Amino acid sequence: MKLALNTATVRKQWNLAQIIDGCARHGIEGISPWRDQISDLGLKKTASMIRDNGLTVSGVCRGGFFADKDWKSDNLRAIEEAHELAAPALILVVGGMPQGSKDLAGARKHIRDCIAEVLPEARKAGVPLAIEPLHPMQVTRAAVNTLEQALDMCDALGEGVGVAVDVYHVWWDPKLHAQIARAATRILGYHICDWLPSTRDLFNDRGMMGDGVIDLPSIRKGVESAGYRGFQEVEIFSDPDWWQRDPDEVLRTCVERVARC
Amino acid sequence: MKLALNTATVRKQWNLAQIIDGCARHGIEGISPWRDQISDLGLKKTASMIRDNGLTVSGVCRGGFFADKDWKSDNLRAIEEAHELAAPALILVVGGMPQGSKDLAGARKHIRDCIAEVLPEARKAGVPLAIEPLHPMQVTRAAVNTLEQALDMCDALGEGVGVAVDVYHVWWDPKLHAQIARAATRILGYHICDWLPSTRDLFNDRGMMGDGVIDLPSIRKGVESAGYRGFQEVEIFSDPDWWQRDPDEVLRTCVERVARC
Repeated sequence: MKLALNTATVRKQWNLAQIIDGCARHGIEGISPWRDQISDLGLKKTASMIRDNGLTVSGVCRGGFFADKDWKSDNLRAIEEAHELAAPALILVVGGMPQGSKDLAGARKHIRDCIAEVLPEARKAGVPLAIEPLHPMQVTRAAVNTLEQALDMCDALGEGVGVAVDVYHVWWDPKLHAQIARAATRILGYHICDWLPSTRDLFNDRGMMGDGVIDLPSIRKGVESAGYRGFQEVEIFSDPDWWQRDPDEVLRTCVERVARC
Repeated sequence: MKLALNTATVRKQWNLAQIIDGCARHGIEGISPWRDQISDLGLKKTASMIRDNGLTVSGVCRGGFFADKDWKSDNLRAIEEAHELAAPALILVVGGMPQGSKDLAGARKHIRDCIAEVLPEARKAGVPLAIEPLHPMQVTRAAVNTLEQALDMCDALGEGVGVAVDVYHVWWDPKLHAQIARAATRILGYHICDWLPSTRDLFNDRGMMGDGVIDLPSIRKGVESAGYRGFQEVEIFSDPDWWQRDPDEVLRTCVERVARC
């Protein structure tokens, strides 16, 4: 499985141009950029830099946030950008409940309806939408929280929509392996990092592969057996540690750890 | 539904004798003490003080932690204590993976085996065991993380074992209401508090009922419809807020909020 870098991993140290250059230097063949970085560098320039450095886009982060007012125009733009970058998927972080609401079931229905509404445009553009279940502790950021729930949504929505499997969000799930098998070729992205037993922050304290307690080889095996043939993408949000380090050290460590784990 | 206090809610301010007295003064009719507090006050003394103040034990916290070396003797002692206090259930916080392990599935199998091993003693003592699924972010403290998983375990174990439903741990679950209905009279405890959207700590940042985003009336209705006739027990771990306040204010607020939510 080829290695990709989710640009969030060194976003505090480098801009997108530097990250693209870094990936090329470290032999990382895939890249998954965030839209704010794409916007800063410019869409055309991003596409040409990625191409000129021999990299492949493994995903675009992110569409979604369907609780926001301008969700529709924003997601249509995101689909265009993902198309322009020839991304194999637009990753959806689906958003939570609107301010002041306690209606979680309603938020979830709204999310499904919103995806249904932009799905025809995504199909036309040839951009699969990847619903990414987020860890239940991040439910206010994304109200899809298990693979099973995401796949139920996919079943209801039909062609052109799948899931992103991020080990950080799903590793704890007793039904993980069964749902990975169920997902089969609907797996549109596979993201890796590790869960630190000492985790103290709900968002930005992810570990480097091998430093935590996730059984990465077993999940990878499951994803491969399911039929996934894309990249494994390192995505580490780490305020106390990896965002503080020399980004070349971070990329070198990613490459080493993936070879080892 | 009558109100009970889980003694963790004011454990930083009061000892168990003060908490029993506080419950009586504030008209809180049930109490769920922790075993370290019971040990400090003495088991006989705890039983008599609770009785003399006209309170009912709604649960004993906690058995479990099956990854610990002395899990068996400790759980047998916990069963005796729960029996002595006429508790309707011994709450199990089941423990995570042993140090250095990445075998989550193995830890889960071990948990089930351990419960099976002490269950005959629990049945003899007339003490139902309540498996409490903990939030997936607390998987290293308890590797049972959804109601569905807990109930599957109950199905395998048979009579004398049920679940504790703590809204904090399960409110996010898309299958919550279906699993509460499935649990039916196997619900042995119902714990309430709230989820703060601003949560910054994985363990000790719970909110007071009404301050967060959990739809408490809807979950309570589900639990009642399932056939639960026990107490609703306030359990708030709150380092930054409620553990810093005057405990009489905390208890007063619990009573007010339960009346309102």
